[in-house]
Amino acid sequence: MAGEDESPSRDGGAGRSVGHAASGGNGRRRNEAEAHLERRELRTGQKPGERYVRIVRPHAREFRRAPEGHIVATERVLEPKGRLGRLWTRVKRLIIGPPLSTAQSIHERIPKVKALAVFASDALSSSAYATEEILLVLVLAGSGALNQTLPITGAIILLLAIVATSYRQTIFAYPGGGGSYIVTRDNLGDIPALLAASSLLTDYVLTVAVSISAGVAAVTSALPNLLPYQVELALFFVLFMTLANLRGVRESATIFTLPTYLFIAAMLLTFAAAAVKMLVLGDVPQAEARPVVAEEPLTIFLLLRAFASGCAALTGTEAISDGVPAFKEPQAKNAATTLLWMGLVLGVLFGGISLLAVVYHVLPQENPTVISQIARLTWGDGPIFYLVQAATMAILVLAANTAFSDFPRLSFFLARDGFLPRQFSFRGDRLAYSTGIVVLGLLAGSLLAIFHADTHALIPLYAVGVFVSFTCSQASMVKRWRTRREPGWQRGMVINGAGAVTTGIVAVVIASTKFMHGAWLILILIPCLVTILYSIHHHYQRVAEELLLDPKKVTLVPETKPIVIVPIPGLHLGVLPALAFARAISDNVTAVHITDDLESADRLRRQWEEWDQKVPLVIIESPYRFLRQPLLAYLEARREDEPNRLVTVVLPEFVPKHWWEWMLHNQSALRLKATLLFQPNTVVADVPYHLKR
Amino acid sequence: MAGEDESPSRDGGAGRSVGHAASGGNGRRRNEAEAHLERRELRTGQKPGERYVRIVRPHAREFRRAPEGHIVATERVLEPKGRLGRLWTRVKRLIIGPPLSTAQSIHERIPKVKALAVFASDALSSSAYATEEILLVLVLAGSGALNQTLPITGAIILLLAIVATSYRQTIFAYPGGGGSYIVTRDNLGDIPALLAASSLLTDYVLTVAVSISAGVAAVTSALPNLLPYQVELALFFVLFMTLANLRGVRESATIFTLPTYLFIAAMLLTFAAAAVKMLVLGDVPQAEARPVVAEEPLTIFLLLRAFASGCAALTGTEAISDGVPAFKEPQAKNAATTLLWMGLVLGVLFGGISLLAVVYHVLPQENPTVISQIARLTWGDGPIFYLVQAATMAILVLAANTAFSDFPRLSFFLARDGFLPRQFSFRGDRLAYSTGIVVLGLLAGSLLAIFHADTHALIPLYAVGVFVSFTCSQASMVKRWRTRREPGWQRGMVINGAGAVTTGIVAVVIASTKFMHGAWLILILIPCLVTILYSIHHHYQRVAEELLLDPKKVTLVPETKPIVIVPIPGLHLGVLPALAFARAISDNVTAVHITDDLESADRLRRQWEEWDQKVPLVIIESPYRFLRQPLLAYLEARREDEPNRLVTVVLPEFVPKHWWEWMLHNQSALRLKATLLFQPNTVVADVPYHLKR
Repeated sequence: MAGEDESPSRDGGAGRSVGHAASGGNGRRRNEAEAHLERRELRTGQKPGERYVRIVRPHAREFRRAPEGHIVATERVLEPKGRLGRLWTRVKRLIIGPPLSTAQSIHERIPKVKALAVFASDALSSSAYATEEILLVLVLAGSGALNQTLPITGAIILLLAIVATSYRQTIFAYPGGGGSYIVTRDNLGDIPALLAASSLLTDYVLTVAVSISAGVAAVTSALPNLLPYQVELALFFVLFMTLANLRGVRESATIFTLPTYLFIAAMLLTFAAAAVKMLVLGDVPQAEARPVVAEEPLTIFLLLRAFASGCAALTGTEAISDGVPAFKEPQAKNAATTLLWMGLVLGVLFGGISLLAVVYHVLPQENPTVISQIARLTWGDGPIFYLVQAATMAILVLAANTAFSDFPRLSFFLARDGFLPRQFSFRGDRLAYSTGIVVLGLLAGSLLAIFHADTHALIPLYAVGVFVSFTCSQASMVKRWRTRREPGWQRGMVINGAGAVTTGIVAVVIASTKFMHGAWLILILIPCLVTILYSIHHHYQRVAEELLLDPKKVTLVPETKPIVIVPIPGLHLGVLPALAFARAISDNVTAVHITDDLESADRLRRQWEEWDQKVPLVIIESPYRFLRQPLLAYLEARREDEPNRLVTVVLPEFVPKHWWEWMLHNQSALRLKATLLFQPNTVVADVPYHLKR
Repeated sequence: MAGEDESPSRDGGAGRSVGHAASGGNGRRRNEAEAHLERRELRTGQKPGERYVRIVRPHAREFRRAPEGHIVATERVLEPKGRLGRLWTRVKRLIIGPPLSTAQSIHERIPKVKALAVFASDALSSSAYATEEILLVLVLAGSGALNQTLPITGAIILLLAIVATSYRQTIFAYPGGGGSYIVTRDNLGDIPALLAASSLLTDYVLTVAVSISAGVAAVTSALPNLLPYQVELALFFVLFMTLANLRGVRESATIFTLPTYLFIAAMLLTFAAAAVKMLVLGDVPQAEARPVVAEEPLTIFLLLRAFASGCAALTGTEAISDGVPAFKEPQAKNAATTLLWMGLVLGVLFGGISLLAVVYHVLPQENPTVISQIARLTWGDGPIFYLVQAATMAILVLAANTAFSDFPRLSFFLARDGFLPRQFSFRGDRLAYSTGIVVLGLLAGSLLAIFHADTHALIPLYAVGVFVSFTCSQASMVKRWRTRREPGWQRGMVINGAGAVTTGIVAVVIASTKFMHGAWLILILIPCLVTILYSIHHHYQRVAEELLLDPKKVTLVPETKPIVIVPIPGLHLGVLPALAFARAISDNVTAVHITDDLESADRLRRQWEEWDQKVPLVIIESPYRFLRQPLLAYLEARREDEPNRLVTVVLPEFVPKHWWEWMLHNQSALRLKATLLFQPNTVVADVPYHLKR
């Protein structure tokens, strides 16, 4: 890396490049990057030493050489300067890890066993609260109504089978990743795609909030002492997930595997123990009996509402079809198999928990949770009970992680297509989409704070979005079959058609039964989001059209020299660089002094005339002590005088040696700059004066 | 104001002025400001049409003409542009009032009756809590110790007499205003003056906090329902005082008069009623008896601590000597008389309250306050009781206002002398020292929030500073007498000497007895403040020395044309103005594109070559996706190549039509700017591109 300072090819001047001398330097160094670049060069038909390429290749060790007019920044440019910078970098690397180069981004392929853990944790974890949510609705009609839990659970498992079968087809149709947004945009166009995207964005935020509050409930069920700190605990988990995801999720597969299988194992073991206890020993544990008075009659509406609440179990089902590219070859087949397994496991867990809840006569209550009551009744208050609670908490918190990888990815797609601000497409130090991760963390954190990390308060908002996006995605598949008419299209169309109709009906059921309890918020939010996304797209498109530059038609006409205004606080050495710069770039320079103190203005005028440097000075008296408004009015007047010339404001700026000295200077300059930024046709130039002492 | 557009004197070009044409325009308008300016012109010996003064007098109606090279901004420059600007201005004017010009600053002279109300409210109001603070310390030694209140009150009233007599002399010596800082700086130099200033600044903040929390206690004593909201109430009062003071205190004399005299009247009436009740009717009301167990023995230390707590009564005594210029002629004599009256009234109120507290056997407790217990025992629970409470609250809140005028004024003096940042010397819309007012409001608000608006928690921090500044001020007077040896200097020296010794001893007593209860904080804070103030002064002085420009020796050498770097996100119309400006100011222009996406870089390169506008393009590959660090390293390398030329970064900036569109653009430019601001020898120029649609 060293030794480049002596490069013979540098001419040190500002002239045009001597092409061959420059490219001659190339041969000295043959590292991989250069070879790569040269290969690229041949491919794109670039010649070394193009006409107008000046020698602009800095000889500093911070850069590696590449073909003419192209330099590669090395890791050295990241070396922080100054003590504070070094400290900050060290702290950041400790938390986030050292930066990764774009070339280091790998596409890890994971086997089915790990894939089940990674993609199914969200879906499987919902079995931890789905039964409880059904019970909480049914109990309104008294304890007698709780038996209805079983048929409702059955209906939801049937729905799960339909959804899984539908998504199986999506996997084969979109082996490159078939998230609802992509599939819908591909088949139905922008607006339905934005509907799917908005629904999913809302639901990812809710997934984080619901999973983490349910995870916290698992903690507080085991350790009731922590109950008063549930919001703090929840926010801590959100912060942890945000940081972990900013670090990147390269090691995530391993992290996921353990808790997911631990949870599955813990639940299956619980079922087995319960079966042995009941069937072999004949001992059916019963929850503490507590007569519950019916508040409402057991209507169809209440049953539907219980069904809608239980549908939270299906959230996360689409994760596998999103992530097909992450599977080992044969990707689609492996993904489909994993989806099948996920459906089976989720069905068993959900069904088992509901069954035990009914058999044990578990009553839903604030704390402990239903699943922890089941575990305690089965295992007693021993170590296994705490293990089940720990596994539940772990999988719930990890389920939030699914949203932490899906939300930023979906926002990246949206940003790439111009529906979200561009910063959502930037990748951070560790190749993660930092903006999306941070935004998700902030939104979920606010939601948890507002709803006091209460799962039951959040559930009514949940699942509407998921089913809207299911419906969009399945309807898109129907359109696709109809358009392509590939072999077997009729069968495919029937399956996806059934999926679309079912999920559509469920979406309506959820929205209407939960409407009064919070779903109205989502039903307002989603159209708003669609509008915002669409407006952003519209804006970017208009701007792109407006900015389109036809190289054949547009030429660069250099501006005439600008009118330069230099606001000065007084006559001292600090304004000299600004005045000198102003004189260097134009011959039309005016110094301006704005004041309400006529005596000091007189003094300045006399000093200025004594100095006599052929720069005119204008004193603007501002009787109301305002600084910005008179300057703006003055600039406006100068602009009107010569409308064809650009007005340039050159601001002298003090740069003190220590950071704390900043607040002793430049307060006026700062205010001026903030205002000038928004002025039409005004160029603002900061000229620093570096204080030596 | 209109019609100036047709001014024959404007030449529209950029050339030098045609002096007489310009000054010829002058005669047309003869308003007062111009006449004033012309008078000034004669006085300073300026000639119209000086050599190097270009015609820079904008013809817009926003300016009034004045002699050559001098223009006066009219109120029209303050007219806001845009809907949001107008709304903001309207809200601001509603709260703060319309701006006042510097010429409108008047020095109101107030008669003695009003002056007593304005300057004494702080001192008088402390009688509302001083007795309670004495009782609260004595009760630690059991209810029997409460009788010691009377001798302690007597000692404090004696101290008041000494301090008042001392300050009487300061008034005659400094008829222009004799705050401790000014008097001390005049006689003892910078460091003692900063000691006085720091003590006062700290105590002003505490005055606001203590007065307002005591005022809130008066409210909650009458309306115990409001107890849970005492912090909110206190913060509301702080906000109210801050806004009222930003409006300016021109009407303040009237505002002050009513509550001050109401409070005096209410207390005197209470004393009279109590006297009648006890002496005529023979009915001595007794507070609910509650045996108090002694926690500590009644030591000398405890007595001294009770004395120290009671000394809070003396805070505010210096206000009159600060404000001598506000009195009617003969100023000093009127001020001295007012001081005498203040001392008498304070002595009577404080003595009377302590006497009644002892006679009624009032026990200090959290709520209600001692003064409200006295009022209730005297008047019963009727309307007069509520009137007394209201008057107490009003005078306490108004006492905070004394600090709101003293703190900003002291910070102005400090800023003027270079001990505080310059913005403390700026006067806002309404001629008030806005920075000082806002800073005081924030500090007092934080203090109230931290201490939960609890008077008793704040009292231990209080009064140390006041007595330190008393001592500094009196010692300065001793020095002054000794140096000047004016007639009667020995007598003056003895009086001020006695004052200095007494207040010095009291300062030590307060600091040592309250040390463990919070005074340590103040004893750390004051030296820190002195150091900070001194460092700021030192910094400004060094800078002023460094920047000193000798007009005879320094000439303006124009810079050679700068090296210009234009970072571009791509090739479109948006970067055209920046490139054109760059070409206009230099012939050494390089466009730089930083990216990690080699394909898009190739595309840009091809477009650029097709465009072929003779501006070289450098592509910096940034494998870690960083934007700023590679650019900084590149600038550094270019700077090393040609150390004598200034490097100028020209940033293209989008200016969208609507404010919400801002966040869709310029995010990278913003980050770049934030970094470049701190770079040595780099000029940053923003060139706006205004989006049309």
